Amino acid sequence: MYRELKQRVFEANMELYRRNLVVYTWGNVSEVDRERGVMAIKPSGVPYESLKPEMIVVQSLETGGIVEGHYRPSSDAPTHLALYRAFQEVGGVVHTHSTAATAWAQAGLPIPCMGTTHADYFHGEIPIARFLTPEETEEGYEANTGTVIIEAFRGKNPKHTPGALCSGHGPFTWGKDGAEAVHNAVVLEELAKMALMARQLNPSAGAIPNHISDKHFLRKHGPNAYYGQG
Amino acid sequence: MYRELKQRVFEANMELYRRNLVVYTWGNVSEVDRERGVMAIKPSGVPYESLKPEMIVVQSLETGGIVEGHYRPSSDAPTHLALYRAFQEVGGVVHTHSTAATAWAQAGLPIPCMGTTHADYFHGEIPIARFLTPEETEEGYEANTGTVIIEAFRGKNPKHTPGALCSGHGPFTWGKDGAEAVHNAVVLEELAKMALMARQLNPSAGAIPNHISDKHFLRKHGPNAYYGQG
Amino acid sequence: MYRELKQRVFEANMELYRRNLVVYTWGNVSEVDRERGVMAIKPSGVPYESLKPEMIVVQSLETGGIVEGHYRPSSDAPTHLALYRAFQEVGGVVHTHSTAATAWAQAGLPIPCMGTTHADYFHGEIPIARFLTPEETEEGYEANTGTVIIEAFRGKNPKHTPGALCSGHGPFTWGKDGAEAVHNAVVLEELAKMALMARQLNPSAGAIPNHISDKHFLRKHGPNAYYGQG
Amino acid sequence: MYRELKQRVFEANMELYRRNLVVYTWGNVSEVDRERGVMAIKPSGVPYESLKPEMIVVQSLETGGIVEGHYRPSSDAPTHLALYRAFQEVGGVVHTHSTAATAWAQAGLPIPCMGTTHADYFHGEIPIARFLTPEETEEGYEANTGTVIIEAFRGKNPKHTPGALCSGHGPFTWGKDGAEAVHNAVVLEELAKMALMARQLNPSAGAIPNHISDKHFLRKHGPNAYYGQG
Repeated sequence: MYRELKQRVFEANMELYRRNLVVYTWGNVSEVDRERGVMAIKPSGVPYESLKPEMIVVQSLETGGIVEGHYRPSSDAPTHLALYRAFQEVGGVVHTHSTAATAWAQAGLPIPCMGTTHADYFHGEIPIARFLTPEETEEGYEANTGTVIIEAFRGKNPKHTPGALCSGHGPFTWGKDGAEAVHNAVVLEELAKMALMARQLNPSAGAIPNHISDKHFLRKHGPNAYYGQG
Repeated sequence: MYRELKQRVFEANMELYRRNLVVYTWGNVSEVDRERGVMAIKPSGVPYESLKPEMIVVQSLETGGIVEGHYRPSSDAPTHLALYRAFQEVGGVVHTHSTAATAWAQAGLPIPCMGTTHADYFHGEIPIARFLTPEETEEGYEANTGTVIIEAFRGKNPKHTPGALCSGHGPFTWGKDGAEAVHNAVVLEELAKMALMARQLNPSAGAIPNHISDKHFLRKHGPNAYYGQG
Repeated sequence: MYRELKQRVFEANMELYRRNLVVYTWGNVSEVDRERGVMAIKPSGVPYESLKPEMIVVQSLETGGIVEGHYRPSSDAPTHLALYRAFQEVGGVVHTHSTAATAWAQAGLPIPCMGTTHADYFHGEIPIARFLTPEETEEGYEANTGTVIIEAFRGKNPKHTPGALCSGHGPFTWGKDGAEAVHNAVVLEELAKMALMARQLNPSAGAIPNHISDKHFLRKHGPNAYYGQG
Repeated sequence: MYRELKQRVFEANMELYRRNLVVYTWGNVSEVDRERGVMAIKPSGVPYESLKPEMIVVQSLETGGIVEGHYRPSSDAPTHLALYRAFQEVGGVVHTHSTAATAWAQAGLPIPCMGTTHADYFHGEIPIARFLTPEETEEGYEANTGTVIIEAFRGKNPKHTPGALCSGHGPFTWGKDGAEAVHNAVVLEELAKMALMARQLNPSAGAIPNHISDKHFLRKHGPNAYYGQG
């Protein structure tokens, strides 16, 4: 069972590795199957070099209980589950410690939409979730990491801004499936690097005008998109 | 028809990819055939890994209408067309989101001629085109992107300064053909990186003296050039 | 004799090279065998491309005298010996001039725990050892380099913070064996890079809250760790 | 004739390319044969991908006249010749536009000895030669580039500090032969990067104490050196 789901999650994890977004075992990709009520995710602490499709862990979306697999799921699994429960349109989630995006997270700053590279994929700034309180940390660190990301999206559409930073930690991205979530993780790292360099050149550099960012977002997304082969 | 033109444009696009100037489908190269009144350009949103010569799209230089090809041209095609119409000596155009050049564009700053690496290829500062107004964006975003680049070249010779930045967006470069435009895109990225690092070391670092930049430009270009094998 | 020890030390050195932490002959890895009272270390100045297991030098842990091998040991061997003598739980030591960690050492600053990537491996800030005095330099530069590292760990547990910077020089890391010490050297370089970039974005960015860094350290280390496959 | 000399110069040039210090045709290596009174150097503007040993140009050390070869020598050849004439112990010279070293040159700053990586190879700061005057530029740009480097070494020993920056241009390095000059070019780029990053972290970071830099330089160089296999 779940053979295709596990294969897809395996491939999305390996793509994260090939794109140089992970050091050692940092980072993980999951994908949800809402019909069957399960999430498949990378096992915890397994090096990418020895990862195999059959090692992918399948968990109940509702309870988090293990439905299939002989390995422990990623320790971040409760964050993934929280995001799937809150964001109904999300089909894949990625967590990395990619260098530049993590630097913004460590600086405690959201990433403003400083260019069209950003606007092509993320509408508006990429929000930063606050630190957990000692109580939230104690109670359930990983699940509450999901909670504060969701809190940072109040009034925002997670489909239009498919990622967030966690203060002092690193980025989560998402998409319609694991592959798209990985794609967005690669884009986020690149735009984080560009935004950092732009700030070095001009500390007061901020967001581009709204009519430009809207134009770029809408030429790639939405009913009148005209980028790509349609 | 257009087999050689399409082959050259294919190869110039692949060179852009090999030189690590593109992430995913960002970036595109075109070349013009002024005798036959056509421009050939990368199709929109096609990954470089699966690009083939026969996918290159041929458009009328005058109308932009598709003359040959089964794919949609790059969404930036109207910018390329505008540049070919305004700059008669240009034979190839490149657009990228290469990291350091894009950082300067996002910082809203032209790149001063801070060294001889710059002077060897670009005479004087690399200008930055202004943001489009909401009206210009609405009316024709990509064609007007060409318009503001051309505006930024008033009083300048596009042959001597084969590239420009677009505010909050990224660089365009050009040359006598697609291959030279790619060459200039590689050089621009490298000098943008050097200029950024020089500014980090010395925030007041500016342009080198004119007699030095003229010397370097003229030893590689013009009637008395003595660089290379002649 | 010492065939397995030398093989392990050879492999740990080659891993340092594969991970791009060394330029030319910079850097070295050693491992101790406390039962037999010896340390095995890379020979001095031998390029990694021509390193072989039989070139690894075995020295007495007590006297530093050569027990086996035809090569001179790394000139940093007395530092390694000093660390093994002072830190009883350490089984492997690494020295590199890796770029970002060395930049912190040259800046004369300890690396604060600015994120969970740091907290996952190093508890609290990574200390920086002071410069040697002219007398200490004269008396025994390499052995006294060990002395000032040990001095910087007064009141700290070297097992929980497996590395230090030497002012104006570069990092030393350690672990239960050579392989783990290399792993920590790779992590240190990555977190040094992230911390540097975070500071560029926000010069007042400092350590994450203690309850977060404790949580991350303890979910990977100690009796209740739940990261990995247990 | 000159087969071995040309082979060595070819190999040193290719090593420069393999070490990622050159973009396109930037950079060149030469070597001198003082007994025969000749210098061999890379031909001008030839891509490294198509460079062959027989393309290396041999010039008279005294007159610069071509002694053997069908290609034009590097346009920087007069700088190399000037350095060989002034610095009797130098056997090989390298010029690059390597990124970080060029950034220091563009910032107009000498590189202070900020760490032991620097001290291991270069004694004291790496000097920066001034810009040429318009008259010097007109009279003989490349030969006078040599003149200002030599001027920057007044009172310094070029053997102990085997390299210099040229204002707004880039680095020259040297050594006992072409291979050692390339080695020093690689080291210079790495220490320029480290020094830049250290300055970003701590703008007032300066040179390490003299007793430390002397110690490091002397443990690798001079009669009592004890680094390496002796």
